[in-house]
Amino acid sequence: MTRALCPGSFDPVTNGHLDIIERAASHFDEVVVAVIANPSKEPLFSLVERQALLTESLVGIDNAVVDSFAGLLVDYAADHEIDVVVKGLRAVSDFDYEIQMAQMNHRLSGIDTYFLPTRSDFSYLSSSLVREISRHGGSVAGLVPPNVLHALERRSRDE
Amino acid sequence: MTRALCPGSFDPVTNGHLDIIERAASHFDEVVVAVIANPSKEPLFSLVERQALLTESLVGIDNAVVDSFAGLLVDYAADHEIDVVVKGLRAVSDFDYEIQMAQMNHRLSGIDTYFLPTRSDFSYLSSSLVREISRHGGSVAGLVPPNVLHALERRSRDE
Amino acid sequence: MTRALCPGSFDPVTNGHLDIIERAASHFDEVVVAVIANPSKEPLFSLVERQALLTESLVGIDNAVVDSFAGLLVDYAADHEIDVVVKGLRAVSDFDYEIQMAQMNHRLSGIDTYFLPTRSDFSYLSSSLVREISRHGGSVAGLVPPNVLHALERRSRDE
Amino acid sequence: MTRALCPGSFDPVTNGHLDIIERAASHFDEVVVAVIANPSKEPLFSLVERQALLTESLVGIDNAVVDSFAGLLVDYAADHEIDVVVKGLRAVSDFDYEIQMAQMNHRLSGIDTYFLPTRSDFSYLSSSLVREISRHGGSVAGLVPPNVLHALERRSRDE
Amino acid sequence: MTRALCPGSFDPVTNGHLDIIERAASHFDEVVVAVIANPSKEPLFSLVERQALLTESLVGIDNAVVDSFAGLLVDYAADHEIDVVVKGLRAVSDFDYEIQMAQMNHRLSGIDTYFLPTRSDFSYLSSSLVREISRHGGSVAGLVPPNVLHALERRSRDE
Amino acid sequence: MTRALCPGSFDPVTNGHLDIIERAASHFDEVVVAVIANPSKEPLFSLVERQALLTESLVGIDNAVVDSFAGLLVDYAADHEIDVVVKGLRAVSDFDYEIQMAQMNHRLSGIDTYFLPTRSDFSYLSSSLVREISRHGGSVAGLVPPNVLHALERRSRDE
Repeated sequence: MTRALCPGSFDPVTNGHLDIIERAASHFDEVVVAVIANPSKEPLFSLVERQALLTESLVGIDNAVVDSFAGLLVDYAADHEIDVVVKGLRAVSDFDYEIQMAQMNHRLSGIDTYFLPTRSDFSYLSSSLVREISRHGGSVAGLVPPNVLHALERRSRDE
Repeated sequence: MTRALCPGSFDPVTNGHLDIIERAASHFDEVVVAVIANPSKEPLFSLVERQALLTESLVGIDNAVVDSFAGLLVDYAADHEIDVVVKGLRAVSDFDYEIQMAQMNHRLSGIDTYFLPTRSDFSYLSSSLVREISRHGGSVAGLVPPNVLHALERRSRDE
Repeated sequence: MTRALCPGSFDPVTNGHLDIIERAASHFDEVVVAVIANPSKEPLFSLVERQALLTESLVGIDNAVVDSFAGLLVDYAADHEIDVVVKGLRAVSDFDYEIQMAQMNHRLSGIDTYFLPTRSDFSYLSSSLVREISRHGGSVAGLVPPNVLHALERRSRDE
Repeated sequence: MTRALCPGSFDPVTNGHLDIIERAASHFDEVVVAVIANPSKEPLFSLVERQALLTESLVGIDNAVVDSFAGLLVDYAADHEIDVVVKGLRAVSDFDYEIQMAQMNHRLSGIDTYFLPTRSDFSYLSSSLVREISRHGGSVAGLVPPNVLHALERRSRDE
Repeated sequence: MTRALCPGSFDPVTNGHLDIIERAASHFDEVVVAVIANPSKEPLFSLVERQALLTESLVGIDNAVVDSFAGLLVDYAADHEIDVVVKGLRAVSDFDYEIQMAQMNHRLSGIDTYFLPTRSDFSYLSSSLVREISRHGGSVAGLVPPNVLHALERRSRDE
Repeated sequence: MTRALCPGSFDPVTNGHLDIIERAASHFDEVVVAVIANPSKEPLFSLVERQALLTESLVGIDNAVVDSFAGLLVDYAADHEIDVVVKGLRAVSDFDYEIQMAQMNHRLSGIDTYFLPTRSDFSYLSSSLVREISRHGGSVAGLVPPNVLHALERRSRDE
């Protein structure tokens, strides 16, 4: 049995993330989607909200579970019997940083990272762009799942 | 008639920016140079100062006008009958981010972005480097127009 | 009036090329689509065939004309009163070579090159991939215009 | 059960290839290592030799099998019930071409490609460099498995 | 006599930095290792601590001296009769920024910057990753010299 | 004493090459400029002609000598007591290949390669572009030294 970890900030989860998770879930026995708690950044959605939005979005993918962690990825992976990391890869600027992290994680614990290219029509999609468009009242329909769309609209109304 | 938008922070405008704007003005019927108001960054020059420096620098380019906007570029473009966006392109690290923005803007409103490579002898020039050199008392003569040079010197004396 | 040049090998023209040409034609007064004759490469389609396939594909775009040239782009541009070059841009590996050519052409004659990012869902599309897939009997429907699809099928049957 | 395909020219197989194959074999149920027959290139080792060198090198990896194919990867994958493609990834210049192929293959058949970064100490290793060093009498010990080392030495003596 | 400058934040010095400095010291007559004081960033180690850790790490390299500076690199270089700058280079994302700085420094004072690729097995190593791993209690043994390892452990205990 | 090697095809030498060689000669005690004999490529100028054009171009640089070699760079370097390799670096696409060669050469013999960014106004210049422009009757004045300009013109007349 191979258990894969899909780590990320997911602030919020986008259709690009969901596409990667769905594909990983079809190739690996179990997929753990883990929200990284990064205390130095002020997120739009809290850790709990981000986990809830992910859990709703992943209904129907039976071999995916949602979790969160603080600290080093390699420590989380060791504690939860993770076999491999799976990450989406959008562009060259991603790649340099991501390969650096992958090689460091391999050195720290021997864990491997598999990169899956994002669908070409989501190549421009990122959580930060989604937040920026939503903050200025633009529409992100089609870029995020429906529950995230509603959460972003509620958030905008409340501000 | 084709109206082009040259958006940017212009904090301050450099000779690299002016070169792009001049070339765009020679190929498109009208060029709107628009300073982006980004409330989350503390600029060296205020929005009003940046517009004034640009306006002075563009004297003689009759089909260029200076403006500013907050919010989404696609909203500004729709409100001002902009046909295309024109941006300078310096290097690969620019390219990844810029193409991401261009593809997102195309999805949001259908607007196209044209990229014009910077002159090779300005390939190392950026507003942030100009600010850093100036702050440490280095000379940026030849890198910015004369009015910006004076404004930077006045700013240094006042601090 | 601004006349734009879209140069390329077009062996064969793809839907990615057509997308760039259509967009250029909506922003510039006239677009000259010029097939580059490169005697050192053995093309799949002859120069005449490539021009014919392009001409058929561009029916309905009234301000686009098809031509061909051998030799330096800057010489062709000078002889045909071209104001700017417009090229599609797919990826970083394109960019380095293309910016080198753009800067050399600017030095040789002062001509400017505008780069238009390809549609994200055509970011993986190239004439050489189309030729390779077609040669092995794969389907390129949706990647090339219908007349090119037929020409590729005829070519495969004849071999 | 997930069956992974590791395609390549393997002319000859290097320790970098073996590292990728071994890791893929530890994460997927079955790994098919397939030598691509490319009639337009003159290889150093024939298709049969490359398969034999691979088969010897992979002794001990019980869930890996060696094969070869001509034509489109997606056709081979469909005929052999391949679930995913796994490729090593060395550098940015690799990445652009590889992601283009991955996205095209996804479009042609829906198949996914996972990229695994090469070990950092093999980041400079390629079959073409191995061939060039060996042709000039340099030592590639440590860069290729022992059987390939012997094959390269025999090949050099025979020329 | 050629005097080389190795500038950096060195927060803290890593084995990757030491490798570059040792190699520069074997090729140039004198190497000045200078810690850059950057008031806008909150470092983990103070300027004095970083200089002390460097000085200890460089014992045995007789032609290397440690110093620090604030302000522009070109001003420091002029004041200290520096002939060339030597920098390690890890990856493409480094390269774009570094070449921009090198070309700007060349324009400001005529000084040249030589880039030395990092050892491939340190290609993933950076001071910021070292700080992050150490902060979460991970081991950076083998990535930094012993005195830095002890300093990081003391720092962790004190927090 | 540090002896640097500047290897290249130099078919023909350009002002970009000369700029790199001159700067290396001002920082290292001796510079060996060595033309690489590559039997698999058909050069425009013969090995002897390329050496002669280089020798003429380097008159006045007293610590530079011109040579040529076939085979592995590391073998030539060992035979001629070379301490370091110095190469110009133009762009990202250069970088990936060049760093791969530098790391392989370091592994083969321990030799280090220093990269010097080309002058920004020569960033688009390459021998292959010079050959192409010259072949089509374009002017490469200012891109190559005068003796190369004459050699290219003689070559064009003779064809």
